[in-house]
Amino acid sequence: MRRACHEVGVKVALIGGTGPEGIGMAVRFGRAGIEVLLGSRDLARAQDAASRAVERAVSGSVRGCLNDDAARQADLVVVVVPYAGHEATLRELAAPIGSKVLVDAVVPLVRKGRSFVIAPLAAGSAAQEAQILLPDARVVAAFQTVGASELQDVDHEMEGDVVVCADDPQAKTATMDLVRRIPVLRPVDGGGLAHAGLAEHVTALLLNINRVYRAHTGIRITGLPGG
Amino acid sequence: MRRACHEVGVKVALIGGTGPEGIGMAVRFGRAGIEVLLGSRDLARAQDAASRAVERAVSGSVRGCLNDDAARQADLVVVVVPYAGHEATLRELAAPIGSKVLVDAVVPLVRKGRSFVIAPLAAGSAAQEAQILLPDARVVAAFQTVGASELQDVDHEMEGDVVVCADDPQAKTATMDLVRRIPVLRPVDGGGLAHAGLAEHVTALLLNINRVYRAHTGIRITGLPGG
Repeated sequence: MRRACHEVGVKVALIGGTGPEGIGMAVRFGRAGIEVLLGSRDLARAQDAASRAVERAVSGSVRGCLNDDAARQADLVVVVVPYAGHEATLRELAAPIGSKVLVDAVVPLVRKGRSFVIAPLAAGSAAQEAQILLPDARVVAAFQTVGASELQDVDHEMEGDVVVCADDPQAKTATMDLVRRIPVLRPVDGGGLAHAGLAEHVTALLLNINRVYRAHTGIRITGLPGG
Repeated sequence: MRRACHEVGVKVALIGGTGPEGIGMAVRFGRAGIEVLLGSRDLARAQDAASRAVERAVSGSVRGCLNDDAARQADLVVVVVPYAGHEATLRELAAPIGSKVLVDAVVPLVRKGRSFVIAPLAAGSAAQEAQILLPDARVVAAFQTVGASELQDVDHEMEGDVVVCADDPQAKTATMDLVRRIPVLRPVDGGGLAHAGLAEHVTALLLNINRVYRAHTGIRITGLPGG
């Protein structure tokens, strides 16, 4: 079954994938039979993170590589670097990303006292910044609100929704299909890339709620057709 | 049953309550046995809106009054004016609001092309602006993401969560109790008033999603203790 999915599958690069979010995505995509290229600027760290992901995923193909190689080999590129490395990383990968689908999961989070807030960006959001840096890429904002701990906790299915914002309809569809590969996440079409900043704010809200309840929260959009 | 609730109850003012959101809240609070003072700057409009609310609510006490009277008589004041009237309305009501609980449901929404965005406010959010304007009031941000059509549609129970942000613990508790009076809304503690702007952004995100799906959406926070 997983093998069958794998044969259909798309190759996904996780740029800056050695952090908890990247490893978590590698685990879930790996389990879904997707070929994952877990990228880092340091090959040894990428390979180490990849073996940890495979161990947790139990099944699936996750390979550690340099960010550059990961982006070059992938059909779809997901960026999960901390915001501090967002611009530099994307500039370096302009050539291998080219006109590929670039899913930006980065959130410009800032701690302000005991609160999480969103740094105001001139571009409006990290994803819009990516689009300015890489005008040929088909940028999609998604996965911003999905927590690393739930991604890694394979004893439980994921719950909640992933809001997907993009201007390119095909890139949006490919990303929504990717979301559906993780049981039982649901993609929700959030409209154009201009709405990416709104989803970023949801991430900060959830982190603040996590602090109050000592929980790992996500969101579900109510009132959509089909529940 | 409703009568019993009513006897326990708090008196709630809805400032600027003649719009769809205010009428919707009057309907739901009225059905819950809460005494509602539906306020407007125009007494005839307030009375007209109140009768429409009562008609829809089938049961409950909703009375139309001037904003000033509503705020003076109420235990808890909810502001639902359009953002354009937010500052002026609050300035006028400084005396009758005094140190009461002031629930701010106002969202500084702006249309930008086909998108809904949030106007950046110097104070950070409408609720924080209210706190600056009325330093004695115990300001709470809540109900921003709850849609007018669902409030008015009494054939269906409400679903989803209301994020409640406040610095005053008692005011927060009173507001969370008020949310629980509407079946089956759940209050979620969003932390301090500084987080109100994050909830505002959720409203804009939901309105954009509504546009894509021609739906009336809300949010539910997943992963909280007890579901």
